Formats: sequence, C-alpha cells, structure tokens
Amino acid sequence: LLILVGGNSWDTNDELLYSFITNAFNRKIPIGAICGAVDYLARHSFLNKFIHTGNSLEQWLSLDNYTALDKFLTKQAVKDKHLVTANGTAVLEFTELVLKLIDFDTVGNIEKQIYLYRNGYYNYCEKYGSPY
Amino acid sequence: LLILVGGNSWDTNDELLYSFITNAFNRKIPIGAICGAVDYLARHSFLNKFIHTGNSLEQWLSLDNYTALDKFLTKQAVKDKHLVTANGTAVLEFTELVLKLIDFDTVGNIEKQIYLYRNGYYNYCEKYGSPY
Repeated sequence: LLILVGGNSWDTNDELLYSFITNAFNRKIPIGAICGAVDYLARHSFLNKFIHTGNSLEQWLSLDNYTALDKFLTKQAVKDKHLVTANGTAVLEFTELVLKLIDFDTVGNIEKQIYLYRNGYYNYCEKYGSPY
Repeated sequence: LLILVGGNSWDTNDELLYSFITNAFNRKIPIGAICGAVDYLARHSFLNKFIHTGNSLEQWLSLDNYTALDKFLTKQAVKDKHLVTANGTAVLEFTELVLKLIDFDTVGNIEKQIYLYRNGYYNYCEKYGSPY
C-alpha cells in the first residue's frame, strides 16, 4: 500500500519520486492519494486511466498531461481499480475506501469503524453498543 | 497552547512530563487533551476542577485521584476554562473547541471551517461557495 498524503510539498519534479510512483502504478500496488497528492498525479499523467476525484477539476483543465476530465467525479473520494483519490476535505471517505481497497476487514466492520468517527462515540454506542 | 495528543503512550509516571503538565495548568495555559491524554489527566488529578469529558467514565471510577464524576459530560468534546477535553473519536469537535479556546478566528469562521470537514467540499460549496 502506498499512501500519498496531502500537503503543499507536491509542486516538485523530483526524478526519484517520479520513478518511485511510476513503479508503484506499473506494479499495480494499492495507492491512496489525497488533496495535493492528487494534483501531482494529475500533473504527471497518472490519473488518465482511472475514474477519480481530487480537489478541483478547474485547476487541472490547463494541464498538458491531464486528459481525463470525463473521468472526474464530483465526489469526496473515489476508488477505481488499485487507486483511491480524494478531495482534501475527505479524511473519513478516503480512509474508508483505502481500507476497502486493501480488504483490511469485512466491509461491514470497516463501515462500522467509519460510523464511529463520523457520528461519534455516543451515537455509535446507541446503534452498536460500546466499541471497547 | 499545549496539545496533549491521543495514543497509547500515556501509561507513564515520568516526573519531567508530570511537572511540565502541572506547570501548564498552574500558568493557565490553554490546554487541549484527547483520548489517552485525558486518561492521563484523570489519573493524575488534573481533571477534578474542570467540567470535562473523555473516553469512558467507567474506566476512571476506580482511580484514587479522580473525584469528579459529577463533572463528566457524555459529550464528544467539552471546553471549560482553559481546558478542552475530548473522546478519542472526536477529532472535529476537539479541533473546533481548541480553535475557539485560543480565539483562532471568529466563531463564525471556525464553524464554517468545521462544516467543511464535517460535510465535505461539495456540501460546503452549495452552502457557502468555494472555500478556495
């Protein structure tokens, strides 16, 4: 699993990073990218074969290497093949799809965990009993 | 501002840590504690003068130094005087109250930011327009 975290460090053309990520895509390793990391993937042609999302389609329209506007969904997070992409505000949705991507647990258990963090401890207890 | 993060490292009686935290309380520095950090505060008598919450009241009932069960609220996060406490699942509620504690921005702006992360980019845009 390769997680490409968000942040403001992605405005880079570092060769080593580029070949590392290229290698991960070629080997079809599960990849999760959120926020600024998805901008990087758009800028370097990695998104064109995947249904995906990101921060903002508008910011990518002028990119030479981004030709996949028909594959952009206006959703918080998207899973397609071995790639999960997410808007920078989509912490929980991103986590949920990445956990499903790697079969971390049963779908039901993953959704219960996400419910806990989305709705809080007391709502969770009411619905499922104590998580501890 | 002193943020005591969650995690499993709080089962400690380290003297330096204890005097550091004691000092912060004595100086009334703004303090935010979440999850395991609140267990630590309960165990070391720091909570008794504050309305507060935490992971689970049940786990504290047997503690010699915790005498404030009448001050425990079954809420995701609680702000009282210079202390914010939170359940381990309460990332957003904790953040919101800490930002309010230190007057990081106007209350309205803080609540808009939290709305963005709670409801996501597209719901936010519908309500407030683009955040960028």
